[in-house]
Amino acid sequence: MDLNKDNYLITSAQYRQRLSKMRNNVYLHGKLASRDNAEFEGGKEIFGLTHDLALDPKWEGMLTATSSISGKKINRFCHILRSPEDMLQKIKVTRLFTHYVGRCIQRCMGVDALNGFSVATYYIDKKYGTEYYKRFLKYLEYFEKNDLTACCAMTDVKGHRALRPHEQPDHDMYLRIVERKSDGIVVRGAKASNSDSPTVDEILVTPTRLMTPEEKDWAVGFAIPADWDGVKLIATCQGGRGLVHNRLVAPIDKFGYADSLTIFDNVFVPWERVFLCGETDFSFQLTMGFARCHRQSYCGCKPALVDIMLGAASLIAKYNGVPNAPHIRQKLTDLAIDSVLIYAAGVASAINGERFENGTYLPDELFSNVGRYFAASKVADWLHILVDIAGGLSENVVQEDQYLSEDLNPYFEKYYAGDPQYKTEDRYRLLRYIRHLAHGDMAEMSLGGDIHGAGAPEMYRLAIWRNTDAEYYESLIKRILGISDKMYTREL
Amino acid sequence: MDLNKDNYLITSAQYRQRLSKMRNNVYLHGKLASRDNAEFEGGKEIFGLTHDLALDPKWEGMLTATSSISGKKINRFCHILRSPEDMLQKIKVTRLFTHYVGRCIQRCMGVDALNGFSVATYYIDKKYGTEYYKRFLKYLEYFEKNDLTACCAMTDVKGHRALRPHEQPDHDMYLRIVERKSDGIVVRGAKASNSDSPTVDEILVTPTRLMTPEEKDWAVGFAIPADWDGVKLIATCQGGRGLVHNRLVAPIDKFGYADSLTIFDNVFVPWERVFLCGETDFSFQLTMGFARCHRQSYCGCKPALVDIMLGAASLIAKYNGVPNAPHIRQKLTDLAIDSVLIYAAGVASAINGERFENGTYLPDELFSNVGRYFAASKVADWLHILVDIAGGLSENVVQEDQYLSEDLNPYFEKYYAGDPQYKTEDRYRLLRYIRHLAHGDMAEMSLGGDIHGAGAPEMYRLAIWRNTDAEYYESLIKRILGISDKMYTREL
Amino acid sequence: MDLNKDNYLITSAQYRQRLSKMRNNVYLHGKLASRDNAEFEGGKEIFGLTHDLALDPKWEGMLTATSSISGKKINRFCHILRSPEDMLQKIKVTRLFTHYVGRCIQRCMGVDALNGFSVATYYIDKKYGTEYYKRFLKYLEYFEKNDLTACCAMTDVKGHRALRPHEQPDHDMYLRIVERKSDGIVVRGAKASNSDSPTVDEILVTPTRLMTPEEKDWAVGFAIPADWDGVKLIATCQGGRGLVHNRLVAPIDKFGYADSLTIFDNVFVPWERVFLCGETDFSFQLTMGFARCHRQSYCGCKPALVDIMLGAASLIAKYNGVPNAPHIRQKLTDLAIDSVLIYAAGVASAINGERFENGTYLPDELFSNVGRYFAASKVADWLHILVDIAGGLSENVVQEDQYLSEDLNPYFEKYYAGDPQYKTEDRYRLLRYIRHLAHGDMAEMSLGGDIHGAGAPEMYRLAIWRNTDAEYYESLIKRILGISDKMYTREL
Amino acid sequence: MDLNKDNYLITSAQYRQRLSKMRNNVYLHGKLASRDNAEFEGGKEIFGLTHDLALDPKWEGMLTATSSISGKKINRFCHILRSPEDMLQKIKVTRLFTHYVGRCIQRCMGVDALNGFSVATYYIDKKYGTEYYKRFLKYLEYFEKNDLTACCAMTDVKGHRALRPHEQPDHDMYLRIVERKSDGIVVRGAKASNSDSPTVDEILVTPTRLMTPEEKDWAVGFAIPADWDGVKLIATCQGGRGLVHNRLVAPIDKFGYADSLTIFDNVFVPWERVFLCGETDFSFQLTMGFARCHRQSYCGCKPALVDIMLGAASLIAKYNGVPNAPHIRQKLTDLAIDSVLIYAAGVASAINGERFENGTYLPDELFSNVGRYFAASKVADWLHILVDIAGGLSENVVQEDQYLSEDLNPYFEKYYAGDPQYKTEDRYRLLRYIRHLAHGDMAEMSLGGDIHGAGAPEMYRLAIWRNTDAEYYESLIKRILGISDKMYTREL
Repeated sequence: MDLNKDNYLITSAQYRQRLSKMRNNVYLHGKLASRDNAEFEGGKEIFGLTHDLALDPKWEGMLTATSSISGKKINRFCHILRSPEDMLQKIKVTRLFTHYVGRCIQRCMGVDALNGFSVATYYIDKKYGTEYYKRFLKYLEYFEKNDLTACCAMTDVKGHRALRPHEQPDHDMYLRIVERKSDGIVVRGAKASNSDSPTVDEILVTPTRLMTPEEKDWAVGFAIPADWDGVKLIATCQGGRGLVHNRLVAPIDKFGYADSLTIFDNVFVPWERVFLCGETDFSFQLTMGFARCHRQSYCGCKPALVDIMLGAASLIAKYNGVPNAPHIRQKLTDLAIDSVLIYAAGVASAINGERFENGTYLPDELFSNVGRYFAASKVADWLHILVDIAGGLSENVVQEDQYLSEDLNPYFEKYYAGDPQYKTEDRYRLLRYIRHLAHGDMAEMSLGGDIHGAGAPEMYRLAIWRNTDAEYYESLIKRILGISDKMYTREL
Repeated sequence: MDLNKDNYLITSAQYRQRLSKMRNNVYLHGKLASRDNAEFEGGKEIFGLTHDLALDPKWEGMLTATSSISGKKINRFCHILRSPEDMLQKIKVTRLFTHYVGRCIQRCMGVDALNGFSVATYYIDKKYGTEYYKRFLKYLEYFEKNDLTACCAMTDVKGHRALRPHEQPDHDMYLRIVERKSDGIVVRGAKASNSDSPTVDEILVTPTRLMTPEEKDWAVGFAIPADWDGVKLIATCQGGRGLVHNRLVAPIDKFGYADSLTIFDNVFVPWERVFLCGETDFSFQLTMGFARCHRQSYCGCKPALVDIMLGAASLIAKYNGVPNAPHIRQKLTDLAIDSVLIYAAGVASAINGERFENGTYLPDELFSNVGRYFAASKVADWLHILVDIAGGLSENVVQEDQYLSEDLNPYFEKYYAGDPQYKTEDRYRLLRYIRHLAHGDMAEMSLGGDIHGAGAPEMYRLAIWRNTDAEYYESLIKRILGISDKMYTREL
Repeated sequence: MDLNKDNYLITSAQYRQRLSKMRNNVYLHGKLASRDNAEFEGGKEIFGLTHDLALDPKWEGMLTATSSISGKKINRFCHILRSPEDMLQKIKVTRLFTHYVGRCIQRCMGVDALNGFSVATYYIDKKYGTEYYKRFLKYLEYFEKNDLTACCAMTDVKGHRALRPHEQPDHDMYLRIVERKSDGIVVRGAKASNSDSPTVDEILVTPTRLMTPEEKDWAVGFAIPADWDGVKLIATCQGGRGLVHNRLVAPIDKFGYADSLTIFDNVFVPWERVFLCGETDFSFQLTMGFARCHRQSYCGCKPALVDIMLGAASLIAKYNGVPNAPHIRQKLTDLAIDSVLIYAAGVASAINGERFENGTYLPDELFSNVGRYFAASKVADWLHILVDIAGGLSENVVQEDQYLSEDLNPYFEKYYAGDPQYKTEDRYRLLRYIRHLAHGDMAEMSLGGDIHGAGAPEMYRLAIWRNTDAEYYESLIKRILGISDKMYTREL
Repeated sequence: MDLNKDNYLITSAQYRQRLSKMRNNVYLHGKLASRDNAEFEGGKEIFGLTHDLALDPKWEGMLTATSSISGKKINRFCHILRSPEDMLQKIKVTRLFTHYVGRCIQRCMGVDALNGFSVATYYIDKKYGTEYYKRFLKYLEYFEKNDLTACCAMTDVKGHRALRPHEQPDHDMYLRIVERKSDGIVVRGAKASNSDSPTVDEILVTPTRLMTPEEKDWAVGFAIPADWDGVKLIATCQGGRGLVHNRLVAPIDKFGYADSLTIFDNVFVPWERVFLCGETDFSFQLTMGFARCHRQSYCGCKPALVDIMLGAASLIAKYNGVPNAPHIRQKLTDLAIDSVLIYAAGVASAINGERFENGTYLPDELFSNVGRYFAASKVADWLHILVDIAGGLSENVVQEDQYLSEDLNPYFEKYYAGDPQYKTEDRYRLLRYIRHLAHGDMAEMSLGGDIHGAGAPEMYRLAIWRNTDAEYYESLIKRILGISDKMYTREL
């Protein structure tokens, strides 16, 4: 790294090189696999673009920011939020970049977790006189300088869902500290649905919920390299496989995604990378610090996915010859509305974001949860609309081996034709994509991650209710009905 | 008016005095009535508060603004939008003031129309070299100085809805110019659902839709005093009547609303008050200028109405003894979500608002239409939730004459009791209100105005589709599928 | 009553005469009122039609049945269900008769309660060797012979909703036995939302819920004349008032509805009219016996109300000139779908009804609850659709005093005109009706009774879940996944 | 076939043997494949069960019927509907058999098409004196005797969707007669989404829509063996592949499905197998005859699929330790409601079915379309609920190769554990299934076939509107409002 440069940006080649050198601790099909394995290509391609486009003059303005530490130009996905404009820019960039790759952009998760750490560590120190924030700033400096990528391991496996961490028959069902040593701590447990872990440099670990005073061992947050000793990534992959087409290739074939069940098998974490260690009263603040950032990020990417589905639905209607059918127009408008509402929640979350004493900003919790929840609640509707408009052929459009077979292709050219002003092959490409999205590999992203990513729908609802000032609203009605003349005041 | 004052604010007494002096041109029950008639009290009470609270130090910051013409302190409802902050402030004030009066605040309509005129007149002049903007600024100065109240008469009666204005068998089904004279124009027609006309100083008139080149006579906009020669207001009133209770009075009893079918019986409008006269290509811009402002205003008042319903539902659940029933919590959360989404659309509409060459701003059309549409689409759900939570008694709770009857009151004290920690009378007041809101006089506001106010739902949808860049979204999908490598670019 | 007649049918005149003679125990506006009071006309008119049309050859086949006791022709609303055909006929008649009067037909409630008594009394006797069923049959004979009308008083006032009857601070919050005497019992309490009580001969009283063993005093069911000693009816009335028009009268003006908070002030009930007295294990069976009948009845009347709204919406679209607008067609189709689904649930409830040992049938509980619940969940949608299609004028269409005023009528003739092939007055009549239905007196019926009538929505849902065989469905999935090879069998 | 038997039932072995002997005209992966290919096993397994269970005493009563021709016992899926009971039995059997195989039962389609032919051919003959019905009866006799399986090829590829068949640039976009010969006809075209064609004996061909008088060549219906000269089946397969697990096998692994784009390459059809040939006025009756039967069949299978999802959701909630969480109970109840409503529509469709002159019955068109439409409109909701309740792990639960790997299985035993009273492996099996259903191979069935099977949603809606007597409903409202005293009568 040339520290004389005016920026701390690396290329995708440098990123890939770094991954290549990592220890083989990822499992695929029951065996250890190198991060060079083709199944990880899809994920790395997208991370690679976050590096390369930051160096591309067309995208640079959006994908870079100025470091609050060094003053250097850094990747926006390494940047701590310092203003409402930063938060607005975050969802705008997320939306446009999702437009570009057509699916999850992956790199928001790491920076969203960094923001959570930035606030929580500051306030722990303030209360307890600890040194977490100092450590964090040092780690952040290192992170920025090396243009690192990270994921966030939040979701514990949870075991019996009705029991709290300390009540579980097996205490490891939530990641916990099993030993405190002079030079660091030892942790054990597993994090589920750990998006992107096989394709990042670092794993940022946060608790998944509020911890009670008896749960000191479970109130733990830290950062480790993704190939650290004792860490095992049992991976599942999407795309970069199901979508790979041998002959009718498309840009989207290159993109994919990997995640893991991440096992922490008595993992030692040195103190300089520990950011929460037993301060149960800050566990929830850390979790929510990440969550309110990340749920706002969804207010950027989900509108983009709706936009793309709208584009696909609008295009297939043209290919089918019925772009102006009223019921299709109506359904496209429904998609447009949902996209706007989610994005608006993200904008309002930025505008109403909160400034903390150390200058870090976090998006407003109520708006970001509402936007995220609304997206989760509508995802099935969008797929339904897309399939409805596409028609039955989107269910059983043939695979490439049939379509391109010499004997059969003439039949497809003839019978897969729609409005003759469009190429049959284009209609085939689009139908094939819709099939993938609605019930192929990409469906895992939509009906799975779109519902549960960044926390489960009921969690968003709890957060919404917690942030709803029902008592104020009750005071309004009491006053206008003459039940009480006191109006409980609050800032809107 | 003392022009040496540093402000142009009047009191409610001054406003009422002005109305008292107006010509009797309002019809009630088939006869001409004075504006002092008790049925208009409800509307005047709210207009009065917009005056008095602007002079109240607690509200002043929100309810006043600095004139862009005189630099004096004026009522916010006289103020042309000059920045995103102005647009944010507009919906914030609207929400808080609706919280205060518990229903439509009425005075937004006039200023929303003024903003529409401010932009349209400027651009007509720019294209045609006319003097509308100069006239408008003069009118605005007069408006600000006198702290006037206004309504907007937009909705024509429309006759046969499938026919355009010039195709109607009776050409008066859309208000039109019947004569052009040296000193002004003569117009004829009627405006329906003309909210607040019996309780304002001025009526601002805009076309209700786009006009085609053959519809010069229908492309007309102007301002007149509400008691102008030839103007007849055939009124309907709400509240200030149905809600008036003789003994168990409540602040909300004072508030109400009036509107009219406004007849223009060959009305002469002098040139200095004419702001559009035959420029058909600007008819739609004027309509939409008002509409995008007013639809954004709904993004302030509708969340407030949801908030109040949430407060009422939350309170009745307490009175009933079941505040924590899961299904009730769930429904309250649904209300909270809708309130947030609508308001978020208003915020995003402000943040993404458009600046015009003359310095006037208008809220973003897509966001404001989506917010308004979403509110209209959910209003019945809200009432449904409120009645569902309140229970069956909200349907047939007795009127005051039964409740307060000496013989019967002991029975009500006993049998209308809920959770004994609350007063039975308070529960009665609340149930009575819910009955009014769901199926009494206030229902006209909710199921009527909440659906159609500021244009019909299908109009919002058309505006949404018109503002949806489907071609851009199609280009995204074409690119990622390899159908075309061109990505149609646009600013997000 | 001439017992030589081959039927036991009386005329509306006879029914009215009987009501005239009743003791004045109904309160209106805080004072005792005669049942001849004009405010009760609306309800009596509908009850009267159930008598007169049964004698009309066109309706006779539907409105009469053959007594299972005497073999005479009796009114269908006095008839115990004896076959699936009877249950099918019940909802068919209900639908057609609702089509005829345009609102609640009122007389189903009494006969639905009789059916509940018929089954419960038989099984109490079977278990306890009591004589309830014998008493009931004698009462039924009397009921049939005199062609009586009845309502059902089920809903207790409930007090603190989270407490059981015996836990209430005031034990009278659920109607209870306060004394057992040699010749009968004395009861005290109140029944809320007691539909039709001011316009019927008899009140049938059932518990409102399951009673636990310690609640013997609350497990009580009986029948009494509506003017019995100690019974006080504190009435609310709809229609027959709000809808009365002096000049543009319409058939629907004649119809209305009355209900009451019914006070039982230490009321003595002789044993021959007592049908449940302390057998707590049968309290729920009696409640649900009535409920499953009555919820199926709603599967007849609610489709009819949707049909009428569909008719109104379709007609106003014609009057407005846009009968074929796609979005209107779509909404009308949505109404049609809901009507069909509710009715289908009623049909399936009849076909899958249960035969009891004494030959009485009751509709299937699962289907009738689903139908009733679905109707309750959609009622606000229907009003929303109706108002949406009707347009904004349905909110503030003027009252008759303005419309028919000599000065103003020419303006309305001109400006209330729609498609000129229809009379303006007809459009006015229809808009006025929609206003009444959506937010006038009739709204109390729709947004109130349509949601809570026959029990609250959450009660239907509990009944649905109680009747859902989740264990069987789990066994299906266990078998196909190889988790268990046992398939828990049951009859579909 | 031993004609002395009292039944015409064959075993699955006989069915498989018959398929083995068929000509290789099915394409898989671009090449001709034998019907013995493993990818067709899934479909054949289900067809096989329809044979074997009919011989199983436990199922016999449901799966067999008495032939209306020979009086012999035949498979219910060969049986023409002769009574409302037959129609009720059809959906009951369909529901229970779907419960058993956990997915589409496949064999209803053939018999639904036979019913369509039974009615249409009779009425063509009646009008035109043709001999279609005689031919059909002979074909039916042959069909019953040999216990044949069939699919229905209805859906044309349609080309430019806004153009009618005769307007298409390529006239083959709808299957058509290209030559009429003395011994038969020659047809050309293709049928899309032709479910089950690779695993049946016979293909029944019907038009896909109403034909206009100029479309004589497109009004064509017939039956041919699935391996007939000139017929090419370009197949897609589901299950019997994606779900096959090597070690943790489950009954559902055996079941699957295949369909095809079926090419008719100048296929000769002899007259005895031609049932419609140019009678354009009967094209729609034939299409709808099949459709109303088949849409009613969906009222049996879709409730069963909801039941299974309900079972899966209820079970995973138990495995997760939260079976009684209120929001889960609520969502399970929502599933229960949808299942009941769809089934109720099927029951009402049977009870209101229509008897035709030749004794054949068809289910009521309005009820069957409403049931089918409602199912299609809710399918995405069901998946959404299932995934929501299952939790995020249902998205990325690992495949068998990871789960059973010796190194990793201990981690899964530990970290995939839920409530410890259930086996971790059972939880794994269930999560894996939910993943398949929501976004694996089975998703093609749910989000594809569940929406478009038996016609597109908009087609159901058109059918619903066509069967809605809006004029009658308008007459109701006209009468009660005094607009007209005529009540347009009709049978309910």
